[in-house]
Amino acid sequence: MTLATIPKSTTGGQAAKAKKPTMKALVYQAIGKKALEDRPKPEIIAPTDAIVRITKTTLCGTDLHILKGDLPLCQPGRILGHEGVGVVDEVGAAVTVFKADDHVLISCVSACGRCVYCRKQMYSHCTTGGWILGNTIDGTQAEFVRIPHADMSLYPIPAGADEEALVMLSDILPTSFECGILNGKVDPGCTVAIIGAGPIGLAALLTAQFYSPAEIIMVDLDDNRLEVAKRFGATSTINSTDGKAAEKIMKITGKRGVDTAIEAVGIPVTFELCEKIVTAGGHIANIGVHGKKVDLHLESLWDRNISITTRLVDTATIPMLFKTVSSHKIDPKLLITHRFKLDKILDAYETFGDAARTKALKVIIEP
Amino acid sequence: MTLATIPKSTTGGQAAKAKKPTMKALVYQAIGKKALEDRPKPEIIAPTDAIVRITKTTLCGTDLHILKGDLPLCQPGRILGHEGVGVVDEVGAAVTVFKADDHVLISCVSACGRCVYCRKQMYSHCTTGGWILGNTIDGTQAEFVRIPHADMSLYPIPAGADEEALVMLSDILPTSFECGILNGKVDPGCTVAIIGAGPIGLAALLTAQFYSPAEIIMVDLDDNRLEVAKRFGATSTINSTDGKAAEKIMKITGKRGVDTAIEAVGIPVTFELCEKIVTAGGHIANIGVHGKKVDLHLESLWDRNISITTRLVDTATIPMLFKTVSSHKIDPKLLITHRFKLDKILDAYETFGDAARTKALKVIIEP
Amino acid sequence: MTLATIPKSTTGGQAAKAKKPTMKALVYQAIGKKALEDRPKPEIIAPTDAIVRITKTTLCGTDLHILKGDLPLCQPGRILGHEGVGVVDEVGAAVTVFKADDHVLISCVSACGRCVYCRKQMYSHCTTGGWILGNTIDGTQAEFVRIPHADMSLYPIPAGADEEALVMLSDILPTSFECGILNGKVDPGCTVAIIGAGPIGLAALLTAQFYSPAEIIMVDLDDNRLEVAKRFGATSTINSTDGKAAEKIMKITGKRGVDTAIEAVGIPVTFELCEKIVTAGGHIANIGVHGKKVDLHLESLWDRNISITTRLVDTATIPMLFKTVSSHKIDPKLLITHRFKLDKILDAYETFGDAARTKALKVIIEP
Amino acid sequence: MTLATIPKSTTGGQAAKAKKPTMKALVYQAIGKKALEDRPKPEIIAPTDAIVRITKTTLCGTDLHILKGDLPLCQPGRILGHEGVGVVDEVGAAVTVFKADDHVLISCVSACGRCVYCRKQMYSHCTTGGWILGNTIDGTQAEFVRIPHADMSLYPIPAGADEEALVMLSDILPTSFECGILNGKVDPGCTVAIIGAGPIGLAALLTAQFYSPAEIIMVDLDDNRLEVAKRFGATSTINSTDGKAAEKIMKITGKRGVDTAIEAVGIPVTFELCEKIVTAGGHIANIGVHGKKVDLHLESLWDRNISITTRLVDTATIPMLFKTVSSHKIDPKLLITHRFKLDKILDAYETFGDAARTKALKVIIEP
Repeated sequence: MTLATIPKSTTGGQAAKAKKPTMKALVYQAIGKKALEDRPKPEIIAPTDAIVRITKTTLCGTDLHILKGDLPLCQPGRILGHEGVGVVDEVGAAVTVFKADDHVLISCVSACGRCVYCRKQMYSHCTTGGWILGNTIDGTQAEFVRIPHADMSLYPIPAGADEEALVMLSDILPTSFECGILNGKVDPGCTVAIIGAGPIGLAALLTAQFYSPAEIIMVDLDDNRLEVAKRFGATSTINSTDGKAAEKIMKITGKRGVDTAIEAVGIPVTFELCEKIVTAGGHIANIGVHGKKVDLHLESLWDRNISITTRLVDTATIPMLFKTVSSHKIDPKLLITHRFKLDKILDAYETFGDAARTKALKVIIEP
Repeated sequence: MTLATIPKSTTGGQAAKAKKPTMKALVYQAIGKKALEDRPKPEIIAPTDAIVRITKTTLCGTDLHILKGDLPLCQPGRILGHEGVGVVDEVGAAVTVFKADDHVLISCVSACGRCVYCRKQMYSHCTTGGWILGNTIDGTQAEFVRIPHADMSLYPIPAGADEEALVMLSDILPTSFECGILNGKVDPGCTVAIIGAGPIGLAALLTAQFYSPAEIIMVDLDDNRLEVAKRFGATSTINSTDGKAAEKIMKITGKRGVDTAIEAVGIPVTFELCEKIVTAGGHIANIGVHGKKVDLHLESLWDRNISITTRLVDTATIPMLFKTVSSHKIDPKLLITHRFKLDKILDAYETFGDAARTKALKVIIEP
Repeated sequence: MTLATIPKSTTGGQAAKAKKPTMKALVYQAIGKKALEDRPKPEIIAPTDAIVRITKTTLCGTDLHILKGDLPLCQPGRILGHEGVGVVDEVGAAVTVFKADDHVLISCVSACGRCVYCRKQMYSHCTTGGWILGNTIDGTQAEFVRIPHADMSLYPIPAGADEEALVMLSDILPTSFECGILNGKVDPGCTVAIIGAGPIGLAALLTAQFYSPAEIIMVDLDDNRLEVAKRFGATSTINSTDGKAAEKIMKITGKRGVDTAIEAVGIPVTFELCEKIVTAGGHIANIGVHGKKVDLHLESLWDRNISITTRLVDTATIPMLFKTVSSHKIDPKLLITHRFKLDKILDAYETFGDAARTKALKVIIEP
Repeated sequence: MTLATIPKSTTGGQAAKAKKPTMKALVYQAIGKKALEDRPKPEIIAPTDAIVRITKTTLCGTDLHILKGDLPLCQPGRILGHEGVGVVDEVGAAVTVFKADDHVLISCVSACGRCVYCRKQMYSHCTTGGWILGNTIDGTQAEFVRIPHADMSLYPIPAGADEEALVMLSDILPTSFECGILNGKVDPGCTVAIIGAGPIGLAALLTAQFYSPAEIIMVDLDDNRLEVAKRFGATSTINSTDGKAAEKIMKITGKRGVDTAIEAVGIPVTFELCEKIVTAGGHIANIGVHGKKVDLHLESLWDRNISITTRLVDTATIPMLFKTVSSHKIDPKLLITHRFKLDKILDAYETFGDAARTKALKVIIEP
């Protein structure tokens, strides 16, 4: 993914000037290596950019993948992070929706709004945007961030809103909702299984309830997370350590299977579990980031009238989700388990990366 | 698939009586073996049955699969065939829509109309029906056939209709339309690739044109069939013998790929071709009957916003297709290449089974 | 609406026999006149009929309309009632889903399942069914009722279900849900106004919450009903006695109007209120039974990208609603305010007909 | 409709400078009065503007309405016209998609791409755009035009395209397609009636055929236009002068009525005709610009399961329509009957305004 509108040469010129303001930022240095560095404060490059002072950001499982070297598009030297809320510091000449001092929610996806994909609300595939923050351009785990296509990639936060809750709207809630719930066609009275009770699976559990399904079965290997799932509204939980999750789900559903199977892990075994439990006419909605092919058992699925969907979050539903948060239909803060100052972000990574022990879901990072 | 409403014991009792009327029927005798036999004329078993005198039937690729032993549910001794038109000979006491002498189109799918699947128009999964004709109960390649759930499984043919054309509505047109065109969300101006230019792929080519796609690319190994595809409206044809179909399609589409990729063969290589050519936001619609798993490359598809669908034809669109035929929006007879008398049905099988040489698409069998 | 499959002549013959069993039934005798009469117990006429012993039934606003002479299709002599639960007493020869002693929910709509409308789940327009119970054939306010097309028009009640709650699934919940919520495209985070807080408007308020709208504004003339609406989940209530409902709704919504305006009264002034408050791109979903034309202000609506929908309940969502009740996503008993024995049904009518004073919503009638 | 982003004061300043380039433009001077005037060539005001040199434009029925004073938002002094193709003369600093000398198609609707409506592709309700060209800002019946929000409001024309045909994509084809065909849910095999065979009704007739309806019944008062309709693919035509159109349509459809009734006139009598002919479960899709309320006969429609839709064209389908034109699924030039030079535009108006005599549909104006 490249950002075609940015004149690359300008970047070099900026470094030449002396005494530029600096900031703290979490930098991916090499595979397995990260550090809190002093970096130059970002500047407006394109007239559609905004600079945002980060007031709250968070860590994502994808950041851990980057650190393992799983996403080679993201090169060492990159400031990580693609979620957060903040205050506009400065805007480019062509930004019309926002001005300095506006409180804003940052979408993890940058969108020009006018390319063929943006016109279909497929912002994730924007030809000059998409998921670039903390990936192919510097991200939000810093004091400041440059947001390209600011008019389309930021959302105004009204005075009095709970900004910490809104951090969950940058990525995790729209991802679970768009890729899992909308693609999975969750409907009143239906039966849903969510494979994976990590932060994204739990977010799917929360957003599934917008549509009043009759049953939500959560599957995971970790009893603590299944316990959390119960508290968040799961009607059944299954620890799949014994490899019998499919059997158990068929039993719970009277041999029928589930209307919607949501894959929220990203490995072959969990996707293939979805294939086993989806009922005739049902849906497999993939959320997981996969690094390998999976076996698709068309020999048993070709005549089952099912759909399988994939999606990179478009964050097209942020405005809708905003309203559900404002009207208390969902409490995104349920997902927040820990809080750290930016200068303790390495501790935050340790806590987040060792969730089995720390029971961490989402951790908030503040200046 | 079992037909719960039929009291199995009755069937045996019928054979006992002497001098029952007989009929000619094509019987699957053993793997690789079939014959035209004398068989008892079928009788009403359930009050919702009708007996239909077949006036035209046809052969399907699935019949060849049965003869190879690929569909073990279909046991030796079975009369094959699940397509056809005919004249009602007799109806059960609970049949209200049809009476003797009505001209009828036979759906390849029998449907009770009242089970949980039928209420959603998923007739293929009817709990006491589905695709049973010429599979788990005797079929249409005979002088007479018993049709269960007659009110829901037959369609009236108005006087003056071209009945030969209507044989194509029993299975091949609804299959290509429901599994390929509707599931594939073919839309005006879109780009479609159909992998496989056999009868079902060509039927998809015909029904795709209901929605005015801008481009329809046909892929096959057989130049003759690609020639036919051109005549039927394909905008490009690709002989994939050289293994470069994906490359060529990406070239034709300016590297974009196709909005809809329709799999109409049923083997891993053709499904995987669909994975390579589908554009972001596009659809893979499977029609093929698969005997093996395929590799689903989620490592490249997880973020592509695609859908993959499977479906056993429900024939729910027969009424819609009927109207398109009556109003000349489609000419199903384009698919008919040969005609045989029932007593020459073995020749028909030979012709149909050696399509590369005979150029057969659909062959009509008449008494 | 006529029931074509019933041989009318048979009915006469039955009356001839002596000492036929009788039952109590509420009969519409003339405009403004009703009585509890002794009537012959109904018998199977068509082989698809079932006789159901009523265990619980209820009254509907439509019954009051019939008694005023507003629905001339319903002629004096008719046993009223189209809702209820009961126990199967006897089934015709062609009924396959039910047998004597099954506990069943009665749909207010009878459906053959096989006509062109039933195949589209438009059961309300079934060519030999639709809303006929207590309208063009005898209804459920009696000890027994004959249900035509029993396989499609009854629903099994599992042991242990709360049958009183299920009476609300015969008509009021599917009506509010299908005509109001589904047609009105209620979605998470959206703003809904429901005009009319009578039983049907309140049922819409309950079923709207399946989709987690951000705001539900209830409008009525009766403060008691608005009080109930608050308890049922309305986020705002407006007493429209002062004629300023439109103004107030525009104020609540920041001049934007509502995404969905549901008309649940059936008179011009309430429909025209919907026209005034619907936002650009929004929906007006009509539930009300109208006796007069309304003014449609196309001069202000032609460019507003709105939809207006009408619907006679199809009860196609009974299975879905059943699951929402079983899983406690909704409590239909909230709608039940009074209970009467069948021999006190005239008192029940009085209570129901004077709701402003009695605060009656739905009243249950039991043997 | 106001264009919030334009600093109004700047406009005055421009007039002050001497020797500014001028151009010819058709100006609405007063009710009933128009003239070809010399006007200053437009200049970039906002950085998102482009100036386009018009190479082909056309007249619209709406222009005639403006001249009659029917659209008071459009004030005297306005240059009319909202359709056309041209060549980019100059772009503002924030325009990124287009540059000077690009050949472009002009949408009749200007869209910022980022407001709440644009994000839903409801460009017609863009908070700083919508239909403003030749309405609240100067339009295309001139040598040059200023296009606000150029990146979203212009479409690139590839070399070699037939630009005259593309003029039909500015308004008339998307209007008929979006408001009539998409809203009316035209489907293969369905029956459509189009009330009004003027340019917009005929455009609906052409675009309806993308979906292969079985029957398209055209209704008009003018035999010439009905003759054209026949040539364009109507399966029946009805001259409604005798007031018996409803009767005739019910006869043609075997008393069933039409699945989709498209109103393409804009007066009560034609809308009310749609109410009479729509079948149960059908759709009334309004295209007409209405100046008065109509009678909506809810007393007969409340239980008919119909939808009624309105829409101001969003031109969101221009890219789709572009592909149908490039692939010859439609020939928009069928709609072009006359051609005039810009200095003869008054003659063009006369010809267009007297269509009954001149048989004019769309007239092309060229420099």
